[in-house]
Order: sequence, then C-alpha cells, then structure tokens
Amino acid sequence: MSRARGREFFTVCSVSDALTGFRPTRRTTGEVVNLEQAAGRVPAVAVRATRPMPGFARATVDGYAVRAADTYGASDGLPAYLDIVGEVHMGSPTNLSLGQGSAVAIPTGGMLPSGADAVVMVEYTDETVPGAIEIHRAVAPGEGVVRADEDARAGDELVPSGRPLRAHDLGLLAAAGVSTVEVRARPRVAIFSTGDEVVPHETAELLAGQVRDACSLPLAGLVREAGGEPVLAGIVPDELTKLKLAVSEAMSWADVVVITAGSSVGLRDETAAVVASLGEPGIFCHGLALQPGKPTLLAECDGVPIVGLPGNPRSALVVFRLIGMPLVRLVGGWEAPVPEPTVVARLSQDLASVAGRLDVVQVRLNEGVAEPIFGKSALLSMLSAADGYVTIPEEATGLAADSEVVVTLYR
Amino acid sequence: MSRARGREFFTVCSVSDALTGFRPTRRTTGEVVNLEQAAGRVPAVAVRATRPMPGFARATVDGYAVRAADTYGASDGLPAYLDIVGEVHMGSPTNLSLGQGSAVAIPTGGMLPSGADAVVMVEYTDETVPGAIEIHRAVAPGEGVVRADEDARAGDELVPSGRPLRAHDLGLLAAAGVSTVEVRARPRVAIFSTGDEVVPHETAELLAGQVRDACSLPLAGLVREAGGEPVLAGIVPDELTKLKLAVSEAMSWADVVVITAGSSVGLRDETAAVVASLGEPGIFCHGLALQPGKPTLLAECDGVPIVGLPGNPRSALVVFRLIGMPLVRLVGGWEAPVPEPTVVARLSQDLASVAGRLDVVQVRLNEGVAEPIFGKSALLSMLSAADGYVTIPEEATGLAADSEVVVTLYR
Repeated sequence: MSRARGREFFTVCSVSDALTGFRPTRRTTGEVVNLEQAAGRVPAVAVRATRPMPGFARATVDGYAVRAADTYGASDGLPAYLDIVGEVHMGSPTNLSLGQGSAVAIPTGGMLPSGADAVVMVEYTDETVPGAIEIHRAVAPGEGVVRADEDARAGDELVPSGRPLRAHDLGLLAAAGVSTVEVRARPRVAIFSTGDEVVPHETAELLAGQVRDACSLPLAGLVREAGGEPVLAGIVPDELTKLKLAVSEAMSWADVVVITAGSSVGLRDETAAVVASLGEPGIFCHGLALQPGKPTLLAECDGVPIVGLPGNPRSALVVFRLIGMPLVRLVGGWEAPVPEPTVVARLSQDLASVAGRLDVVQVRLNEGVAEPIFGKSALLSMLSAADGYVTIPEEATGLAADSEVVVTLYR
Repeated sequence: MSRARGREFFTVCSVSDALTGFRPTRRTTGEVVNLEQAAGRVPAVAVRATRPMPGFARATVDGYAVRAADTYGASDGLPAYLDIVGEVHMGSPTNLSLGQGSAVAIPTGGMLPSGADAVVMVEYTDETVPGAIEIHRAVAPGEGVVRADEDARAGDELVPSGRPLRAHDLGLLAAAGVSTVEVRARPRVAIFSTGDEVVPHETAELLAGQVRDACSLPLAGLVREAGGEPVLAGIVPDELTKLKLAVSEAMSWADVVVITAGSSVGLRDETAAVVASLGEPGIFCHGLALQPGKPTLLAECDGVPIVGLPGNPRSALVVFRLIGMPLVRLVGGWEAPVPEPTVVARLSQDLASVAGRLDVVQVRLNEGVAEPIFGKSALLSMLSAADGYVTIPEEATGLAADSEVVVTLYR
C-alpha cells in the first residue's frame, strides 16, 4: 500500500546529534529597547560601563569618616579622641575636608569627605563629650568605604551578550545610567497546524471526527518562554500545495517556521518533500530516535530553520521542548545553556526502553518517588498530570525500579 | 549617639521561620481571562472537563479498523484476509459500519467506524489483491485506538488550582474547548525606594553624592517572575511623614507593599515605627538572620503585607528572592513550591560563616567548580558576574573547600 512507501524518507538521528548538529546560522538583528523593557532580552553586544561606579567613594556603614592613621592603636582601654567637624547628608555633595584629628558623621551610602580614607562604625564610637568622639577600634585605610570605581571601572563589562538580562542586571545597568540596551529582536516563530480534522480551538461545538487545535497555543507559550514572538499562522488543510504556499509565504517574514505535521504517514512524508523543495540546504533529519516524537523533521531552507512536529499534540510538545526551544533561543542569540529545575527521585517501577532511542517518560512525584504516568501518545492529560519527566538515555534498555533518576521539573 | 538606639527594634528571625511563619492571609480575587492570555496565570479553581475527550474513538496508528476477533491467530505464515469496505477521511464523520470479515482504511487520528474495536498498523498488513488485505498479526480489542473518554471523562480535573498554567496545559484546555479560565488576579505590588541620595534611574548626570535608583527596576522584574504586577510607586525622601503618607495611600490599592529602606540606621528603625503604626497585627520581624540582608522588615498591616528591604541594592535583591517572591506568589494563590534550577559543584575554597545565620554567597561556575565572588554588600556587579548562589545553612560555621555544594542557578 502506497502510504507505507514514505518511510524511506526517514533519516533518523539522535536527539543529541540534532542538538549539536542542527545549528542554523540565522540570528535576529539588534534593536534598541528602554531599560524598563529589557528584562529577559538578550543583549546583542556586552554592555560596558561608561564611567566609574559608584562614581564617588561611599560609606558602607553608619559612623564617622576619619583618617585611618588617627585611629591606630585605639582600643576600649585606650580610645582615640577626634573632633567632630561636621556631618555628611545623604545625596548632597560635601565640601568638608578632613584634617588630622578630626571626624565627620556619615550615614551608610554617604559621600566620603576629602581627606578621609576610612569610616569607623558607630558601634565602635562613643560621643562622650559633645563635639568629640571616642574611637575604640582602629580601622585600616579603605575600611567602611566603597571606592569610586569599586563596582565597575569605566570600560568594564557590566553584562555579557548571549544570555538574557536577569532582573538584577537591570539594577546594575540602572545604577550605571544605562537607559537603553541593544538587544536581539525576538525571533518571530510562525506556527502552523495542519490536518483536515483540526478546527480552531475556539470552536464551541465539534462535528464528529473533528478535534480542536491543541498545538498552537501551547507551542506559542513555549516560544515565549524561549524568548520568541509566536505568530499563529493558522490551520492548513491536508493539501500539499496549500501547505507549500503557506510555508513559503511565512518564510518571507518568520525567523523560524514550526509545522505540526499532517496526521497520516503519507502526508507526513510528502510534507518532507514540500519542505525539501523550499530551499537549500534542506532537510537535516527526518525522524528522531525519540519516544514520543519520532516523526520529527528538521530543515533549513533559504536561511529559515523549519521544524516539522509530530501530529500528536503530546509528542509535538515533548519534541518542541527538547529541540524547538533551544533552536528559538539560538536564533535569538541566547547562546548560554539554560538551567532547568531538576530533582533526584527514586523510580517507583521498572521502565523498559529500546537501546538507541531516547525515551521521555512523564512522572508524578510523591515524597521523593517518581511514578511514571503511562498512556498513549495521543493523550494530552498526561502532561498536565505530570510534575516533570525522566529521560531514559539512548544507550540504556530501561531503568530499574528503585534506581535514582533525575526528574526535570515543570515550572 | 542617638542613631544607635534604634537597634532595640531588631527582632531577628531566621529565614526559614520567616518563610513558614509569615503567611499573610491576603489572596487576590478571581478574574476571567481568555485561554490565549492564560499561560502562567494561576487558576482560582480547578478546571474540569465538561465533556469526554477526545469525544470519539480515534485511531492512534495508520492502518485498518477491524473487529479484533477477525484477526485472532493471524501470523506471517497464516495471515487473516479481510475485505476493504471503505476509507475513513480525517475530520469527517464516518457512517461506515463494519461487519464480520471486513476492514476500513484509517489514518492516525481518524474516527473509528462503528463495529470496529481495534486498528491494525499498516506495517502488519499487505494489500496483495486490490480490495482485500492480508493481516500478519493479531490485535486485541482496543489496540491502536484511543477511547472516546480516554483523555478525560466528563467532570475530570484537567488542571488544578494553586499552580500557574504551563504551556502544555493550554493544549489540554484548548482540546477540551475551554475558552476562558478563572484565574487569580496578579498581585499588585507597590515598590517604593527611599533615600535623599536616590534619584530616578533615568537621570543622565548625577550630582556628587547622588545615586540612581538601582532597586525599583530589578524588583519589578522579580515581581513579574513571581506572577505579580509591579507598580513603581516612586522615590520617597528620608522624611517619615512623607513615607507614612505614601505607604498608607498605596495600601488602598496594593496587595503587597515593598519599601527599600532608608539608608541610615535611625531612619531604618523609624521606618519600622511608621510601619507599625499602619495597622494590625503589625511587625512580624525586624531583622533576618541572613547575610546579606539582615535589616529586613516583615509586617502585615490592615491586611496588606509589607516588606522593608535593606538599602543596599544587592542585599535588597537577595532578600526579595528568598522572601519577597514567595510572598507575592502566595498572595497570588500560587501554593505549589517553585522548582529552582540547581547544579551540584565543588567549592573552590573555604567559606566562613557564623552559626545561626544563613549566608548567601554568589558564585561563578567553572567546569564543575563553584568559585565564590566576594565583595562588599554595596556592590551590584557581583550579582551580574555570578552564575548562581550557594547558601551556608544556619547551623553551619562555614563550608570547607572541595565540599559538594548545591548552586541555585540564575536563569
């Protein structure tokens, strides 16, 4: 029967080969955003300090600005005595100048007056006579002080390119007076669903044989998590000419194209033929050594990476997490590896697998025990019931009950 | 000197006591959002299926719908022969009915015709004579089929309340025809910076003694990560009457109030007095057994949780990650623990601590080795240079070089 023939198209590769070998060169261009909008964005170039930070020497404790030499030898038994010659006010420049034997009251963060080289904590002082203090501990030069360039010197790298800006990076950039950042544009990811049986998810009443599009919204969510901008490009019927037209149109504006594959074997393989016709270098692999998720297609056509996902929504989402999200990050200039939350647990039962294939098994966690959730790959509810997943490595033929496994957790 | 007196206000508690003991009862109310906007939102109530899913029995493989009994005993040597009486088309209801000895071609996802109870994979068939197939393997009833209610029965819980919707949850809800979800409103978090030296981060040129607001933007980022809606409520000068007025006004609309504390000891403690005057039950603790981050204030006044953070931006951000983000999640109904990405590494050198205090030490990772980054708590650049942090537990007086540590990774 003709539908079986298409299996010749399968050029199965391992997940790790796909991750290391499928590295399209496309990167989004830079765009300038305000610092307020920069969280989670990936700088296109490292951001450097233009001036020293904090810019002036500051007290790091509440106390008295002093010349350290005036405190040498001071102790509880033999305090040093200094005259209070003034007070530093927060946020104001001080024109006080410190001579020998004098001290200036200063709050944490206050600007160190000239002549001072250290700050004695208020805890080690006593104002026994108005206008003078006893100092009970010696301080070294620089103690209780942040230098004018201690947080950054002019030209220092504040944040690198290649990883998204974290919340705390915004603090450093704000302090440095950086008001805009050149970041990579979010990769625009065109998401197509295909299948004559698929209707928009908003459809209130289904006809017999129809199913709602269960891929587009979750794929859009994963694209956003990967820093991309999803564009729901619609549902394409199982007609190759329409698919070719739709995908080639999307290639004119999208940085990545994602297609949930036609459901039938024949169509899946003809999808591959369509993709192969869209440009060079073409198909990288058709088929992953992955369960679920085998009927996956990876291609690069005329500079646009294309991902063909299995028709089963659960398989499609497993593949997109493993392969699609790293691809979107790469195109968006996010080169650093992304840490995923994990936990070590004991497996509640044996898990069988086949050597040469990576298995992704959904699990529920129960007091340190990972309980596999079994079910056909057409079932979506298994993902929502899971706390995370376990992988069975390609070289293994299974995992034994009671063995320790690393569970990657859903957030 | 008067500024020292305020230390009486400190009622230090441990970080774990703060996390378990400070549990304000405030929760945001529910609001209805479209499924397209529901990713990351926390359902106020569990979402249940109103109808069985997928709603009709479907093929999970490409092949032939059959009566399983007709295949019993079939093998390569002795195939079963069935008449092909038709074909199922995707997305269309089938009015075919299967009698004994017949088969219907069906693609993956196709609707099972009445009379059929299994699907034989095309791989185990041969169409040797047009209109008839050989079947080389027996199938059991239910094989190659998803039941009409196998993904969910009517009334089944699809997603729980108390944790944010994950991308894949949207797929399940889309498939189930759920178009809107009742979620908790995002907690509105008022963020105040205080300090006469603090100027808006947009300020291009600083006067001597001034610093840009380095807290508001990163705190806003962390609030968003915790599912909240940050409101930058402005910079309040070091005047207690103005602070009281600003905070009590914010309490009329905010679900949580965050104040980065005044810089001087005196003002920090008077801030506590101001907060204590804003309502019952008042201050939970003033001071955390935490380094950096000791001068932290936790309070609940008239139903509004209030967090007073240290004036040092780095300390403020460390505290807000540990204490503030869980609080925002709690108020937003996010009850499940949040998995953080971690990695086990070897410590490059001894780390000293003081028993009874939790230390948060920023580290850089280098080929499995965690290298502590040291510096004064006023320095912000240390956070951006770090890959994550290590904690030294309260009971420990330090960690030895070469010991294994768990590094919580920044994403």
